[in-house]
Amino acid sequence: MNRIFDRAARRMGQGLFWATVLLVAVPGEAAAAVPAESQLGFNTISFLVWGALVMWMCAGFTMLESGSVRTKNASVICLKNIGLYSIAGLAFYFIGYNLMYVDVSGWIGTVTFLYGPSGDEMALLDGDEGATAAVVSNGYSVMSDWFFQMVFVATAASIVSGALAERVKLWSFFAFITVLTAIIYPIVGAWTWGGGWLSEMGFQDFAGSTIVHSTGGWAALAGTIVVGARRGKFRADGSVKSTPPSNVPVVTLGVFILWLGWFGFNGGSQLALGGAVDAVAMSNVLVNTNLAAAAGVMAAISTARPIFGRVDLLAGLNGAIAGLVAITAGPDMVDHYWAVIIGAVGGIVFTVGMKVMEMLKLDDVVGAVPAHLVAGAWGTLAVCITGGGDFGVQLLGVLAIGVFVFVVSLALWFLLQKMVGVRVSETVEEIGQDSAELGIEAYPEFVVMPDADDVEELRRS
Amino acid sequence: MNRIFDRAARRMGQGLFWATVLLVAVPGEAAAAVPAESQLGFNTISFLVWGALVMWMCAGFTMLESGSVRTKNASVICLKNIGLYSIAGLAFYFIGYNLMYVDVSGWIGTVTFLYGPSGDEMALLDGDEGATAAVVSNGYSVMSDWFFQMVFVATAASIVSGALAERVKLWSFFAFITVLTAIIYPIVGAWTWGGGWLSEMGFQDFAGSTIVHSTGGWAALAGTIVVGARRGKFRADGSVKSTPPSNVPVVTLGVFILWLGWFGFNGGSQLALGGAVDAVAMSNVLVNTNLAAAAGVMAAISTARPIFGRVDLLAGLNGAIAGLVAITAGPDMVDHYWAVIIGAVGGIVFTVGMKVMEMLKLDDVVGAVPAHLVAGAWGTLAVCITGGGDFGVQLLGVLAIGVFVFVVSLALWFLLQKMVGVRVSETVEEIGQDSAELGIEAYPEFVVMPDADDVEELRRS
Amino acid sequence: MNRIFDRAARRMGQGLFWATVLLVAVPGEAAAAVPAESQLGFNTISFLVWGALVMWMCAGFTMLESGSVRTKNASVICLKNIGLYSIAGLAFYFIGYNLMYVDVSGWIGTVTFLYGPSGDEMALLDGDEGATAAVVSNGYSVMSDWFFQMVFVATAASIVSGALAERVKLWSFFAFITVLTAIIYPIVGAWTWGGGWLSEMGFQDFAGSTIVHSTGGWAALAGTIVVGARRGKFRADGSVKSTPPSNVPVVTLGVFILWLGWFGFNGGSQLALGGAVDAVAMSNVLVNTNLAAAAGVMAAISTARPIFGRVDLLAGLNGAIAGLVAITAGPDMVDHYWAVIIGAVGGIVFTVGMKVMEMLKLDDVVGAVPAHLVAGAWGTLAVCITGGGDFGVQLLGVLAIGVFVFVVSLALWFLLQKMVGVRVSETVEEIGQDSAELGIEAYPEFVVMPDADDVEELRRS
Repeated sequence: MNRIFDRAARRMGQGLFWATVLLVAVPGEAAAAVPAESQLGFNTISFLVWGALVMWMCAGFTMLESGSVRTKNASVICLKNIGLYSIAGLAFYFIGYNLMYVDVSGWIGTVTFLYGPSGDEMALLDGDEGATAAVVSNGYSVMSDWFFQMVFVATAASIVSGALAERVKLWSFFAFITVLTAIIYPIVGAWTWGGGWLSEMGFQDFAGSTIVHSTGGWAALAGTIVVGARRGKFRADGSVKSTPPSNVPVVTLGVFILWLGWFGFNGGSQLALGGAVDAVAMSNVLVNTNLAAAAGVMAAISTARPIFGRVDLLAGLNGAIAGLVAITAGPDMVDHYWAVIIGAVGGIVFTVGMKVMEMLKLDDVVGAVPAHLVAGAWGTLAVCITGGGDFGVQLLGVLAIGVFVFVVSLALWFLLQKMVGVRVSETVEEIGQDSAELGIEAYPEFVVMPDADDVEELRRS
Repeated sequence: MNRIFDRAARRMGQGLFWATVLLVAVPGEAAAAVPAESQLGFNTISFLVWGALVMWMCAGFTMLESGSVRTKNASVICLKNIGLYSIAGLAFYFIGYNLMYVDVSGWIGTVTFLYGPSGDEMALLDGDEGATAAVVSNGYSVMSDWFFQMVFVATAASIVSGALAERVKLWSFFAFITVLTAIIYPIVGAWTWGGGWLSEMGFQDFAGSTIVHSTGGWAALAGTIVVGARRGKFRADGSVKSTPPSNVPVVTLGVFILWLGWFGFNGGSQLALGGAVDAVAMSNVLVNTNLAAAAGVMAAISTARPIFGRVDLLAGLNGAIAGLVAITAGPDMVDHYWAVIIGAVGGIVFTVGMKVMEMLKLDDVVGAVPAHLVAGAWGTLAVCITGGGDFGVQLLGVLAIGVFVFVVSLALWFLLQKMVGVRVSETVEEIGQDSAELGIEAYPEFVVMPDADDVEELRRS
Repeated sequence: MNRIFDRAARRMGQGLFWATVLLVAVPGEAAAAVPAESQLGFNTISFLVWGALVMWMCAGFTMLESGSVRTKNASVICLKNIGLYSIAGLAFYFIGYNLMYVDVSGWIGTVTFLYGPSGDEMALLDGDEGATAAVVSNGYSVMSDWFFQMVFVATAASIVSGALAERVKLWSFFAFITVLTAIIYPIVGAWTWGGGWLSEMGFQDFAGSTIVHSTGGWAALAGTIVVGARRGKFRADGSVKSTPPSNVPVVTLGVFILWLGWFGFNGGSQLALGGAVDAVAMSNVLVNTNLAAAAGVMAAISTARPIFGRVDLLAGLNGAIAGLVAITAGPDMVDHYWAVIIGAVGGIVFTVGMKVMEMLKLDDVVGAVPAHLVAGAWGTLAVCITGGGDFGVQLLGVLAIGVFVFVVSLALWFLLQKMVGVRVSETVEEIGQDSAELGIEAYPEFVVMPDADDVEELRRS
């Protein structure tokens, strides 16, 4: 039939899947089953409504990041985020989707431009009633699937902006995002959801712990290395400068938005809602998603106490993210306590990962690498416990995607550094990107306390 | 069939309900009716999508509360809220749902642990196509219902955090919430939605004016009494210290989130969307919900003018909440002007209740008790006017649940006070829970004006 | 059948439409089609879920506006917005819907009060199973349509509050909004969606570029002229005083909320989801909506650079709005690149329009007139390119609605000025409406920098 059905068939086991399709397709045999055209309705609703919630995650990342940076950079991160969402959508339309999904050869799809409804759909919209059967047999409307895939690209891109906040140049960042969303992510997607080589080996990643979140995390890590830490973050005496979030309620709002959006991210990744088996599975997915996030919060708070020596709100908030990332690779188990365990471990690896990043002097402003890369890898491997994943294949997927994304991203960041520079000047960093690059301040009327280190430095100069 | 069907049957009248079920179950008799498997799809969408919006209400409470407290406590209230949502979800999974819904004896369900999909659902997911009929006959997927019930528990818990903000100890609060969501709320639920004694008497509470909102309100009132008012709130000379919200746009955002989420709260409480009667009823529910909130806003603004002597934004915002709480017990009437009246009265009783709380020297930071307890009681009694409720039974329900929740909560707060203390020290209260308990500030870069009373006190000491 | 079917039939072409209806209505002929009662379920879900997202846009406007004004007016704009949403809902219930949709004579519907479910629906809810067929034949539940129409009125009203922020009197504003939502907007709606004279001429406006957005824009423009610019905005020496937004992250949040809500605004305006043709069309609508917004962002940023001399976040944010407004008149094209072009031009006309407003000394605080009126007119004319609209008819619609709304609004604003005044006193404007009209401050604890001009003036006085 088509690629989504293939992906669903792989997930359900071929037998049950085709039985379901036949059951529904043969009228009279099972009159109480979902008619084919109703299935298209259900599947389309699922893609559109859950997809809209995934778009909403972009607002979540924006709030999380804007609240996490210092006030002098809180506007530019808003521009980076609305820009990256726009770029991702346009790039995926112009080329990305085709690279990822159209006639994937094993490594990559086709290099063609633009995408649109099927010929049958256009005929139907033009009034050709005879096209109905063909449209219905596709199982979902073509562009509802495109919409759902598009919002996923933006999520991968969002991860990068947080890690590199407060010092990456605006236009270099946009250039990187264009390549990430037009080419890098689609290639990873072609290997997996597009039906390429990793998919053929049996790699499982339900909604993208590795494909989306680790991909974003690796791109962020490469950027962190090339762009370098913020001025004064790691002091000569080995101490780490505290850079607390400038607006905690806004960070919290961001996390709630992400949590809500994740119901769409994981729930919609069931890719269908046209029959009992999908309705049951999607419900389990939402329950597991919520339990993993809840467990991530409590585990991260508990772990942060010995590691950071305090009840740590930010650990709790990021624990939710890490729990969500961890469950994303396999949120469809029926023994829900496993979701609690996987989410809790996600929260713990985040907290430990955050400490390790600090020790490695890698400056990740919002903890994107531990939350998305590390927890994503954990979640992908955990599928071996709960989803029957093959450990060798899962590990291979994590590593292959990691190496590919990291190396290409590193090269791209270096290239950008040579060509146009990736880091703002010391002066810009000191006065903040908001006033230096945008000519505005995020909160122009509030009296802001000067950064103690900046004051010290200004005094000396 | 099962408990949701029973609840729906009670609501619709047995005759119509079973007629609908039969109409749909007999193929050929009514070919244009909704096939049974499609009904499962519609019902599951309703639970999942509306349930996701109810989860979003937790973000609404967080914003409402974080903006309402003073800046020095704006972070800890974020932690309390994301923590309570996590605890509520885990506690309801481990024990709460079973106490509330599984084999309810009249007073309580079973003390068993964990919850999961039905055996038929697991068989279906494992590929046993023969299980489809059994899964479909349940009417909805088991965990979609669990998800919808779970988000309701969190709402009850959210109400408590606002009332006790700025002085309750973090871990004592979490301890209380654990018992509230694991035991107290489930027992109230067992008496009513679970089919227990109040349900058998004919008590009506569509989406939980009393079961959810008054329960949260009584627990909050008990806490307010035991924990006591904030230092200096009620002065020796009888005057009340003004403690304005620290971030009004964030409070407003919270109210809009709650309003949106309430469409899920009330709309999803129709519990089904599998046929015309449910689709019609759910539409009426959303319309009434919106009209009641709108009327609550305008009534509260109008009432606040004589009572508080000014056009009061906070009264307007809380008027929306009170109108929503009031309509929640019976949002399915077909004469929509009643929704306007019930919501308007909700807005008025909130405003009056707020004044009474002040006169009683009860310090409820966000007005949770008047908005949820008082307006909830009003709404539950109003069902006698619009929904055919029996006044004696409705009153009995309001009182029985009120006494039970208030007494148990009071005992629990006292117990916590004796064991670990429920109130932060004077020093912590003075410098704020954010820096004292969490080691961060909500807005660390903004220059904050010192509290006039604190300055005075420091000067003296 | 009924008005929604008529509107859908006009849009789809009569042939295809009735073929679809018949296909579905005749059992046995096409067993895999969507049964009629399921269609009602799909259509109702579409109205309710997408309608809830449109309500959410009101929160978006509130955040956009509250972050855009100076801190001293950030609370009163919150009250204006929650008030206007409440008033709009009540006014549309009491009279507006009937004027717009019930027995439209060409120019206006009927002057009757209140609205409610159909008699068939009430019979069904009362247990009369025989009413099912009649309810189902209507295609959707009556009040689900009402709900969806109601949230649109509020959008039109929201546009006005932003333009007139910081100086319009609260109660005069509410009076204007009452007439706008009870009478002015419903008359425009009667001419078009209600089936009146413009509709009969073939005027096309899918989700309301002109009907909703330009209507709001014209009402705002009239208000801007009568109320006048903020004190000191346009200086005697010809320079324009910079009034930067007081809270940029909150403005950004508002734009993301609007973007999300617009999926409901345009997607729900397909008005049906009961068959393949609607599912396909709705998917295309969401994709085009997103592409137009994304293109609007990038085009506005690019255009703002030469015009305003900087990378302009606010242009980018408003570019999204302008792109969304522009695509709203015809978001159902199948060649998606046209959405990119239409949205990009929307972003450009916004930026240019913003500059023109400044040159005309019209003070529009949030750029509502360029974003909604100008981009809305562009979008309505662009339907001639992509949707087969007749240029003469489209232009006539834009002008007729523009003249009607502008003239009536101007007269109403003048009347209010004579009767009660529309503008706050100089003193209130100086100290801000928050403390002067509401007695609260939006951010009472933050130390706020005084306005340089105010300081200067105070010094002189």
